[in-house]
Amino acid sequence: MSRPSLFTVLSPSLLHLYDVKDAVVVVIDVFRATSTIAAVLHNGAHKVIPVDTVSGAIEIGQELGAITAGERDGRIAEGLDHGNSPLEYPATFIAGKTLVLTTTNGTRLLHMALRDGATTVITGSFANLGSVCDFITASGKNVLLCCAAWKDRVNSEDSLFAGAVVSAVSSHFTIHCDASLMAAMLYSSVKDNLWNFTQQTTHYHRLSRYGLQEDMRWCLTENIANTGVIYRDGALWRMG
Amino acid sequence: MSRPSLFTVLSPSLLHLYDVKDAVVVVIDVFRATSTIAAVLHNGAHKVIPVDTVSGAIEIGQELGAITAGERDGRIAEGLDHGNSPLEYPATFIAGKTLVLTTTNGTRLLHMALRDGATTVITGSFANLGSVCDFITASGKNVLLCCAAWKDRVNSEDSLFAGAVVSAVSSHFTIHCDASLMAAMLYSSVKDNLWNFTQQTTHYHRLSRYGLQEDMRWCLTENIANTGVIYRDGALWRMG
Repeated sequence: MSRPSLFTVLSPSLLHLYDVKDAVVVVIDVFRATSTIAAVLHNGAHKVIPVDTVSGAIEIGQELGAITAGERDGRIAEGLDHGNSPLEYPATFIAGKTLVLTTTNGTRLLHMALRDGATTVITGSFANLGSVCDFITASGKNVLLCCAAWKDRVNSEDSLFAGAVVSAVSSHFTIHCDASLMAAMLYSSVKDNLWNFTQQTTHYHRLSRYGLQEDMRWCLTENIANTGVIYRDGALWRMG
Repeated sequence: MSRPSLFTVLSPSLLHLYDVKDAVVVVIDVFRATSTIAAVLHNGAHKVIPVDTVSGAIEIGQELGAITAGERDGRIAEGLDHGNSPLEYPATFIAGKTLVLTTTNGTRLLHMALRDGATTVITGSFANLGSVCDFITASGKNVLLCCAAWKDRVNSEDSLFAGAVVSAVSSHFTIHCDASLMAAMLYSSVKDNLWNFTQQTTHYHRLSRYGLQEDMRWCLTENIANTGVIYRDGALWRMG
């Protein structure tokens, strides 16, 4: 039997080149949406509702009596309760609760995939690398590793995470995809110095202006919140 | 004085994210359009006219009494005289002549850049790496390294060439661009084994089916036809 295919999509602007319908779509936004989502669900939240806009988050938060979170330009957005940091959500605070989270790149990509007809969407980040690899390997389906990027420009940290997945699962898939090959080669070159490499990236410069170095270090730590995350009925849930 | 910016655009589908108007646009199609163009002009051709379609190439070829060339699916396209191989164009054959060349990915990207208002367009490949670096460094302008890719999917060989350029010229530019960072890191990882690495790529598998290994080796040889190529008035010319 032939193995399922795996492709890496380095930017939402390239998503139209791939068939999302019968694939597992892995939404990747390492700094910081999908890392924070892993943290929140790992720490026992009931579910996370991803929303495009601040006003949408406020509205849904009021409707459900849920916690709202989201940042714009590195600060908690006006009208919301919390920020995008994975470190803000220990179990003592978030267990059992619903979080309404608004992010830009990650949420937009998720909604693009759904609009294109995706039926299986999960989220991935270094924080839950193992869970992502286990799920896609067990699924028997084709896989699209979809990087949220930054305003559609390719970014290193999402590509690196795709490379980490490719490196771990390549024997289970047929991979005719140079983006996957390049991501895996990049990951293999810098995996022992992820933090040093990251300090050269555009997102590091953006986030370090807001003093978010500790967040970034957390987001680069493999399996620090190793819980699978799946999208269903408008929300993100713990798998299983 | 601040240094000009340099960005790498990994696919034509990402070109809209960048401002081509005041930049030097470097069109990169290593296998094989921009490699063959470097060979043809290095060997003394008068000019190369890039054309989108086979029928367009036939028409212009007849009008000008020029040599026509182009392949589809690895064979000389019906109605044309020659193929896309750089090895088909020694000086004894091509010096002083005009070549009408139809390719798919490379020509399309060139026309996209012109349509977006690009005023300075050059072509680049490993064959003329040195000339490309000299030109963009001397220009004092912002630079976009634009990969032709394969039907808009990111490919390794064009990305690697962008990485070779970034590695050579980085001290002359301000580079806030993860695609450039990734391309340079990739090039640095595989430059001593370009041929081995290339055998894992999608384009290698495509072209090796047509027995084009020797072509690919030529196309990966730095400065083997080190002549600058610039677009002007509908054609590609030797610089200077």
